[in-house]
Amino acid sequence: MELLKKKIETEGKLLDGGVVIVSGFLNHRMDIGLIDEIGREFYRLFADEKPTLILTVEASGIGIACMTARYFGVDVLFAKKKAGKNVAGEVYSSTVKSFTKGVTFNIVVDKNYISSADRVLIIDDFLAEGEATHGMIDLCAQAGAEVCGIGICIEKSFQAGGAKLREAGYNLHSLAVVDDDENGRMTVRG
Amino acid sequence: MELLKKKIETEGKLLDGGVVIVSGFLNHRMDIGLIDEIGREFYRLFADEKPTLILTVEASGIGIACMTARYFGVDVLFAKKKAGKNVAGEVYSSTVKSFTKGVTFNIVVDKNYISSADRVLIIDDFLAEGEATHGMIDLCAQAGAEVCGIGICIEKSFQAGGAKLREAGYNLHSLAVVDDDENGRMTVRG
Repeated sequence: MELLKKKIETEGKLLDGGVVIVSGFLNHRMDIGLIDEIGREFYRLFADEKPTLILTVEASGIGIACMTARYFGVDVLFAKKKAGKNVAGEVYSSTVKSFTKGVTFNIVVDKNYISSADRVLIIDDFLAEGEATHGMIDLCAQAGAEVCGIGICIEKSFQAGGAKLREAGYNLHSLAVVDDDENGRMTVRG
Repeated sequence: MELLKKKIETEGKLLDGGVVIVSGFLNHRMDIGLIDEIGREFYRLFADEKPTLILTVEASGIGIACMTARYFGVDVLFAKKKAGKNVAGEVYSSTVKSFTKGVTFNIVVDKNYISSADRVLIIDDFLAEGEATHGMIDLCAQAGAEVCGIGICIEKSFQAGGAKLREAGYNLHSLAVVDDDENGRMTVRG
């Protein structure tokens, strides 16, 4: 996706350790025109899959998932990183290791809000080692729901998540792919 | 707002301790048609204020803020509950006590993404004691930005946040107000 590629090239940064900074337009301050175009592009890519639900994980995925869901006319379910008092029912739970935060945590969804009748489109801002994505796939499996697609804004080619998901046969589309060349510079494929 | 009021009456629950459960349509599974109508209503209420930025706090506020920002054509900045590796710059920080989670935490925004030129519309899903809202007001004050409005989906009348903000002169609109009657039942004003 050309617009996202240009944004990453002009405003993104690659830190030591492979952390990609896009906080000026994607996952802290959000450029709403861009996010709306991202939603439109996910619709173009996944419309034929006819998802009944979009699943993401708090926090950065939520806005992108909502702007995407508008095009599909379906609800968003966002997995929570810890069950609080405001999740009252029984939950499906999966363990995730965060690359950027260096911690392990549980993600949960209320069992009432996803079922074996659902065709789920998973949406997230980043794909690195794929831990969060695998956690969401696991939640869908527990619910008996089918994962009909995985839409990622930025995939890091130098981490293994994307390759593993494609090998496993998932219908994965990444709108931009970031490469880390041998000199620690970032190049972006649209 | 009639649509939100009806949703709360038919699907919401009031737990002991004043926790309002609306996780089936607002802050876990999100009814995108409803959230879009909420965005439209916030636009109707605050369009004259001409905000340049919408500020919210992760996680539940983000989707609502994004769907609202579409109508205004402005960006969303979401305060993070803890600075991770993906917030690289200097931050404004404020301390917030969460009513639902029973914990105290810091919220932060990168100093590069809010300035004294901004007119900020604060958007959030709930207003109870007003702790999160006051934290966001504090972040705006540190940046020298003006708070031109506060838009809340659900205000709890039995907690003091709304009254305090109105006394202080803020332009606050809550789309639905939940009362807790003396028998622990919930009534909703639209």
